[in-house]
Amino acid sequence: MNENMLMFGVAYYPEYMPYERMDQDFAMMKKAGINTIRVAESTWSTLEPLDGVFDFHYIDQILEKAQAAELDVIVGTPTYAIPSWLAKKDPSIMVTNAHGQEKYGHRQIFDLLNPTFRFHAERVIRKLISHTAGHPNVIGFQIDNETKHYDNRGNEIQRQFLEYLKEKFETPEKLNQTFCLPYWSNSIHRWEDFPDISGCINGGLAGEFEKFQRKTASDYLAWQADLVREYMREDQFITHNLDFEWRKFGADIAQDGYSYGVQPDINHYEAAKCLTRLGADIYHPSQDDLTGAEIAFGGDSIRSLKQENYLILECQAQAFKQWTPYPGQLRLQAYSHLASGADGISYWNWHSIHNSFETYWKGLLSHDLAENPTYLEACRIGEEWRKIGHQLTGLRKNNKIALLIDNATLTAFKWFPIDRDLSYNDVVRWMYDSLYEMNLECDVVDVNGLEPDRYHMIVTPALYCASEELLTKLENFVTDGGVLVSTFKSFVANEYSTVYADTQPHRLHPCFGMSYNQFVEPGRTRLLGAKVKYFAELLKPESAQSLADYEHKYWGGYAGITRNTYGRGAAYYIGCYTEKHILKNLLSQAADDAGIQRLPEKYQWPLIVRSGQNRDGKTLHYILNYSEETQNVPCIWRKAKDLITGEVFHNGDTLDIADWDLKILEEANM
Amino acid sequence: MNENMLMFGVAYYPEYMPYERMDQDFAMMKKAGINTIRVAESTWSTLEPLDGVFDFHYIDQILEKAQAAELDVIVGTPTYAIPSWLAKKDPSIMVTNAHGQEKYGHRQIFDLLNPTFRFHAERVIRKLISHTAGHPNVIGFQIDNETKHYDNRGNEIQRQFLEYLKEKFETPEKLNQTFCLPYWSNSIHRWEDFPDISGCINGGLAGEFEKFQRKTASDYLAWQADLVREYMREDQFITHNLDFEWRKFGADIAQDGYSYGVQPDINHYEAAKCLTRLGADIYHPSQDDLTGAEIAFGGDSIRSLKQENYLILECQAQAFKQWTPYPGQLRLQAYSHLASGADGISYWNWHSIHNSFETYWKGLLSHDLAENPTYLEACRIGEEWRKIGHQLTGLRKNNKIALLIDNATLTAFKWFPIDRDLSYNDVVRWMYDSLYEMNLECDVVDVNGLEPDRYHMIVTPALYCASEELLTKLENFVTDGGVLVSTFKSFVANEYSTVYADTQPHRLHPCFGMSYNQFVEPGRTRLLGAKVKYFAELLKPESAQSLADYEHKYWGGYAGITRNTYGRGAAYYIGCYTEKHILKNLLSQAADDAGIQRLPEKYQWPLIVRSGQNRDGKTLHYILNYSEETQNVPCIWRKAKDLITGEVFHNGDTLDIADWDLKILEEANM
Amino acid sequence: MNENMLMFGVAYYPEYMPYERMDQDFAMMKKAGINTIRVAESTWSTLEPLDGVFDFHYIDQILEKAQAAELDVIVGTPTYAIPSWLAKKDPSIMVTNAHGQEKYGHRQIFDLLNPTFRFHAERVIRKLISHTAGHPNVIGFQIDNETKHYDNRGNEIQRQFLEYLKEKFETPEKLNQTFCLPYWSNSIHRWEDFPDISGCINGGLAGEFEKFQRKTASDYLAWQADLVREYMREDQFITHNLDFEWRKFGADIAQDGYSYGVQPDINHYEAAKCLTRLGADIYHPSQDDLTGAEIAFGGDSIRSLKQENYLILECQAQAFKQWTPYPGQLRLQAYSHLASGADGISYWNWHSIHNSFETYWKGLLSHDLAENPTYLEACRIGEEWRKIGHQLTGLRKNNKIALLIDNATLTAFKWFPIDRDLSYNDVVRWMYDSLYEMNLECDVVDVNGLEPDRYHMIVTPALYCASEELLTKLENFVTDGGVLVSTFKSFVANEYSTVYADTQPHRLHPCFGMSYNQFVEPGRTRLLGAKVKYFAELLKPESAQSLADYEHKYWGGYAGITRNTYGRGAAYYIGCYTEKHILKNLLSQAADDAGIQRLPEKYQWPLIVRSGQNRDGKTLHYILNYSEETQNVPCIWRKAKDLITGEVFHNGDTLDIADWDLKILEEANM
Repeated sequence: MNENMLMFGVAYYPEYMPYERMDQDFAMMKKAGINTIRVAESTWSTLEPLDGVFDFHYIDQILEKAQAAELDVIVGTPTYAIPSWLAKKDPSIMVTNAHGQEKYGHRQIFDLLNPTFRFHAERVIRKLISHTAGHPNVIGFQIDNETKHYDNRGNEIQRQFLEYLKEKFETPEKLNQTFCLPYWSNSIHRWEDFPDISGCINGGLAGEFEKFQRKTASDYLAWQADLVREYMREDQFITHNLDFEWRKFGADIAQDGYSYGVQPDINHYEAAKCLTRLGADIYHPSQDDLTGAEIAFGGDSIRSLKQENYLILECQAQAFKQWTPYPGQLRLQAYSHLASGADGISYWNWHSIHNSFETYWKGLLSHDLAENPTYLEACRIGEEWRKIGHQLTGLRKNNKIALLIDNATLTAFKWFPIDRDLSYNDVVRWMYDSLYEMNLECDVVDVNGLEPDRYHMIVTPALYCASEELLTKLENFVTDGGVLVSTFKSFVANEYSTVYADTQPHRLHPCFGMSYNQFVEPGRTRLLGAKVKYFAELLKPESAQSLADYEHKYWGGYAGITRNTYGRGAAYYIGCYTEKHILKNLLSQAADDAGIQRLPEKYQWPLIVRSGQNRDGKTLHYILNYSEETQNVPCIWRKAKDLITGEVFHNGDTLDIADWDLKILEEANM
Repeated sequence: MNENMLMFGVAYYPEYMPYERMDQDFAMMKKAGINTIRVAESTWSTLEPLDGVFDFHYIDQILEKAQAAELDVIVGTPTYAIPSWLAKKDPSIMVTNAHGQEKYGHRQIFDLLNPTFRFHAERVIRKLISHTAGHPNVIGFQIDNETKHYDNRGNEIQRQFLEYLKEKFETPEKLNQTFCLPYWSNSIHRWEDFPDISGCINGGLAGEFEKFQRKTASDYLAWQADLVREYMREDQFITHNLDFEWRKFGADIAQDGYSYGVQPDINHYEAAKCLTRLGADIYHPSQDDLTGAEIAFGGDSIRSLKQENYLILECQAQAFKQWTPYPGQLRLQAYSHLASGADGISYWNWHSIHNSFETYWKGLLSHDLAENPTYLEACRIGEEWRKIGHQLTGLRKNNKIALLIDNATLTAFKWFPIDRDLSYNDVVRWMYDSLYEMNLECDVVDVNGLEPDRYHMIVTPALYCASEELLTKLENFVTDGGVLVSTFKSFVANEYSTVYADTQPHRLHPCFGMSYNQFVEPGRTRLLGAKVKYFAELLKPESAQSLADYEHKYWGGYAGITRNTYGRGAAYYIGCYTEKHILKNLLSQAADDAGIQRLPEKYQWPLIVRSGQNRDGKTLHYILNYSEETQNVPCIWRKAKDLITGEVFHNGDTLDIADWDLKILEEANM
Repeated sequence: MNENMLMFGVAYYPEYMPYERMDQDFAMMKKAGINTIRVAESTWSTLEPLDGVFDFHYIDQILEKAQAAELDVIVGTPTYAIPSWLAKKDPSIMVTNAHGQEKYGHRQIFDLLNPTFRFHAERVIRKLISHTAGHPNVIGFQIDNETKHYDNRGNEIQRQFLEYLKEKFETPEKLNQTFCLPYWSNSIHRWEDFPDISGCINGGLAGEFEKFQRKTASDYLAWQADLVREYMREDQFITHNLDFEWRKFGADIAQDGYSYGVQPDINHYEAAKCLTRLGADIYHPSQDDLTGAEIAFGGDSIRSLKQENYLILECQAQAFKQWTPYPGQLRLQAYSHLASGADGISYWNWHSIHNSFETYWKGLLSHDLAENPTYLEACRIGEEWRKIGHQLTGLRKNNKIALLIDNATLTAFKWFPIDRDLSYNDVVRWMYDSLYEMNLECDVVDVNGLEPDRYHMIVTPALYCASEELLTKLENFVTDGGVLVSTFKSFVANEYSTVYADTQPHRLHPCFGMSYNQFVEPGRTRLLGAKVKYFAELLKPESAQSLADYEHKYWGGYAGITRNTYGRGAAYYIGCYTEKHILKNLLSQAADDAGIQRLPEKYQWPLIVRSGQNRDGKTLHYILNYSEETQNVPCIWRKAKDLITGEVFHNGDTLDIADWDLKILEEANM
């Protein structure tokens, strides 16, 4: 793929088609400006119809026609769904999870560690990659698909986990002490007595196992990457579609849920190490509920893994009835991905599927396989990207705010919830969305990848698990002039979910200039007039200033928000969950402390601004209207050109942005 | 049973009685006018206390005393609940369903295909029928009881299913193509690789298995019928109590739910073939929630199976606390069954049970086994039926409207729901209840039994699965002058749930004069001022007229209801779910198009009119007041006599119908 | 323990501590006035780290330091949580319940009847008790912990249950008849055919099994008591912490639920027989939801088991965020326990736990292990008890009202619920809480322990199962001048849940002077203007007077509340569930009939008065303010002294009781 070109792609499954129509499909793709197809990731039973019998006729046909149509191709290893003959051959391949052993049928329900699986997966990967790597239109490989640990708790992973524990803790006594195993008589005194982890009631130990489960998933991806690397060309890439916590509303059907927050079942930071091109899948609410927040959150998360641009390998075309886009929304979404640092997008999928399971996760084409309003809007995007795509690739960010996320914390809150109606990702999104709506761009950084020097301000939503090492980093960050903004439930426990046995917030209480040792159900408590919800810590300021005390007969003597200067920096703490406008006021003040420039008031939700430098060093501002009303704002730049229309604006000129429309302003050089 | 007599019966379980009181029971029945008892269907462990040891003393006593009391007897084969010794003898008898293998205890949880079960069932059936068939008071036999497939997914049914697939599809490739099995690598390339169906994620294939499951249930009934036929007399009948989708409100207790819609677990049309007398079980809400709709829907469904009258083999007496009838309701219900074509009813059950499971599914007698208000109301019914029953039997209908129902569609929507809160039966009932409340009587017709020539108007609520053959029928129906009324989600897929890959509605879009290729969540959309709910197709009229466009900023350009003339007929289409009054307006117009006469406006809900011809060729009108207010309407017939009171009315006379009361008007001959 | 001293204790788990700090803990306890620690009940894996290897170094250290600190010690047998080596040694130890066999991890999930378990439990108990019984600071032993039957349905318990049935019923025919087993063909005709109880659908038989399950739990406690008795000194006691139905709100996390009502899984009356000191665990809502009702209900239940005082072995310190007490609440709770007859309390637990499972079930100390407001309030309690404790121990009650409770009924309603939203304990608490809020103190008496002579008034909330023997007792009670107050669903069935087959309420209908044979969903029914909810029996007064008829078009002819004089007494019956104020009016009248003196109107909720005689024969009145407003009432006693402040009040003086505060008035001798 040309680095000056935006990827405009689709997942393409001719094997799912009710009849052969590849020529017609490619012609319709070309009309829409589609330049890339992603193929083969679910084709194992097609490529290897019987054990050891390979048939690449199908893939050859795609590549031949793609070459003729000048389409780039990303080839996926076909391992996320196994053929039935393989499950028949060795039934132990099916994963054993909390519900017992799975039965064949669904994707992603086998044991990644199973030797039979690995043998056959390796064979089909080697066959496919060696067969396709030489083809000129193949630009890269996607290894597996949305890989996770599938809650594997079979014998093999438990055996390996025990070895891991032995190596890490050396003696049972150390293990007992780390996780408080004597509780309910769970301590062990020789390794042989280590029980089946499935019955575990120790939140810390179970969290350690979940961490190990995540590790098996990223190790598996690294293993695939090594295989692919043996065959691929230097100009090809290895990517993977990392995805996010899938938030369901309740129904156990395909048409339910969206990309919500931190992924619990694989660690993105570890998984990304083996990739040469970052990739992600992002799905989100639409129609009246389209906000762009998931696009931004997902993009900021993926980009921050390596401070690199990325590909959106899957995003929605029409999808479900509730996502069929309003006119303009498909285009707004596409540009929003670019505004976060994507170098292109790929729709899932080209065509709607006519049976099976995800029949109503509709593609660009409806089931009639003809043109439709959404397809026609894609044509407009394709046309624009052909013209200006080279100016939009490689957008670089220099964000001064880091929002810290942590898998261990996510797991810990499953065992020790803040409130039954408030999950870790709810707090992460409460914080992230507040920043997003204020047009304060941030990196979303895994705690293991934090480089504090890059930032002026670090934000920790409910960062429950924090190692001493991380705490040292954060303390030094403030001492050296940084601004730290933390919420309730930050710095409570160590990396094993063990609550620190001294003053809270552990180690950083001098930095925050306050401490607490009680927390309560808010009940009728208010803060700055707004209802407090879910949880409230009773903060006792020492050197800190209370920015707001609780309003309550008995908790009124405690602070809910504090600010402290410490070293050359400042530390804010909000001890409770409340309405977003209160959090935003706090963030405004913190951003000012951190010397981060904020846009004028008019530039705020539902008008979203995302900025960066393109490859030519030009500063671009994406101004995105996430509403059904036209928005008018004054141009605040000396001189800027809308890359889409060519129109030029000077400071004070009015920018009219129609419903679900956008502008991309390129600042003129001084 | 005398065909000039209405059956007035009870299910009678002396084996459940806390003490012997058959004489007393029969005396109380006689007082109430009860003329029929249904016995023995749950008595296997009583009749065959040990393997091969039979004891018919119990049944002999019933028959002897019934003869003395001049009660007709329907003998049930005792196979729906097996004795524990049989489950002990061959544990493989217990069915394996989605939850694993069932444990002995509940009824209807064994494998209908199990050879041990069949051997013992055959033996006890032969013994019982040969023992009782000669008795003069035995008027017929009920085979089994509310038979269904019990979600059987054991080895034997899976083996038979594979044979069925081989025969039907011949090659794995054809199977793959029919159901899109390559999806998620599920294709098979030799029959040996066909996996356990329990893990199946392919909606189409799973639907085919469910169809096969239903077939095992109707085949099993046919097998029982063949056995009974070897012994029964010519004047005896074979019946079965077909029942309906049981809609629960949430609690997993006996006192919850009612007969709601199309039965998912056996196909009535197939099952009815082996019966010589149609039978049904109908239960419904009562007290303030009594509407008669379930009585009418169930009756119209059963009668339409063969255009024959039927017996209500079970209906509620007192039942649950929420069903204990208001004064008048028991009687209103009884006549309502007749008004749909029943030749009598039988209460479940005679007496309340004093322990076990359905203790609070109360019978005519409460636990005190004494008279009570409900029993006394039954006495009134019995008295009236003794007098006028001969004028009410054999009511014939000549309905000009057919409402089409389909099991394959019901199954398909489990996999591909319209909305998580809108099931297939919800749409069926939305349509049926609208017709019912408008006093537009209809047949409820299985798609496999449709004879279009009988009708002027065909109604298809969400008829998702439609074979090309059915579509041809429907197109010809309209061409020939019929009126077709279809809703959203009709004609989307073929009989294998595979969505048609061309313009929607498939094949009939010229007939409807419109098409669509997008559908959406309604959100704030309105239609004719009313809220649209659950689902909306964006209809694009071509030759059709839009009867209403959506009211919405973005979907406003699309129609929500269309009407088209086609050939000599007309076709209506409503693309969304909305309030019933809008649907009723559409149905009014369609009925007018179809030349179907409607009653004056005053004759409408809660006043229900159901009509037909009795054996004497007289036209009867049941006028039923489903409310707690007296209703007054003018007589619209030249001259008519109330069969109950003998009162005569002329055109324009006022009919006063008290709360929960009724009249049966016999039109005078011209 | 000195009988003149109140126990002020904590559960203490040094084995859970993140670091060794016993000296510091004991010092902090002493400061707070803590005089007793409860230890060892979850320490099996610590005391016996490997099979047969015992290490009492840990327990020795505690005893040694406790002696130095002058702390009393209650030693718990460590059997409620087994070590993993034991589950490894014999996997059959893990209980098989409705969900299959449990996996090791959780506490209380093994088979109490398993011989391997019993062997090892006996060994460790003998070792521990023989090791500690001689220590001067050990005042008693707690056997096991919150023991229940764990829904054991494994092979051994089923074998024993069958033996029990054989012995009790002698023939299968008697069994069939008792439980109506012919229903659904469940009758058996030789014992060998008795099926696995897990599939049982017979509510009566399943109830008998549940009774048997409860028996295994109390038998097991008696077995432990026998072992302990072999070693203990005469001045030591055997206790156990009986607990209550744990009412959850929905989340399956530790921080959810509270002690609500009658315990379903062990029978307190049977279990208490082997104890020499009654004990209980009581947890309850707090903050705005603190009412004291659970403290009173639990206390009245436990005290009534033997008409003895008791120890609260567990109650909440800080516990969950929603229970962290308001200032004053911890102290109010402590005194409320005493006011019901407790001789002291013990917090669960001393310190919050830093990992594992109950991490947020916080102790007196927060995770920082430092002082906090709750700890400081405990110090105040300790200080006061040191001064006046000797005047508060051994409080004796002479309640004239008995509220009858029954385990069989509780089980029966699981099968035959009154309403899906109204459980047995809901009715018990509706009745109990009404009495409580009226300051009418009562005993809460198991039906098997009823001595009618003690009482003037007996109250039966929904006493569904009632043996003929009990009914005789109650009838005689009324005949002899007692007042009986019963609700709907009382006296319906016998002790096997078999509904009586004659006039309801069985046998007592002459006593109540009314009968009914229908009951209904209330719908829009009202009674005395208030909405009737869940359930309504249609009462037909004979000799009784209707105190209120239903307000409803059709049920208006029936009574909802009746009163009858019978013999020298009176019998009230309320046939439906409605608002508490209506029940309270009925109870007022009944109490007057019974000659029970009521406090003046001002002394009512939220002001709670609980009274008794202390060891010196002095009458004490606890006046407890369960609200955040100061309450003012006139002193109604001639002369009384507040034991806490020493202040003296005369008749008519104003008592000011601050929010969540209390007074303990000792009446002056005449």
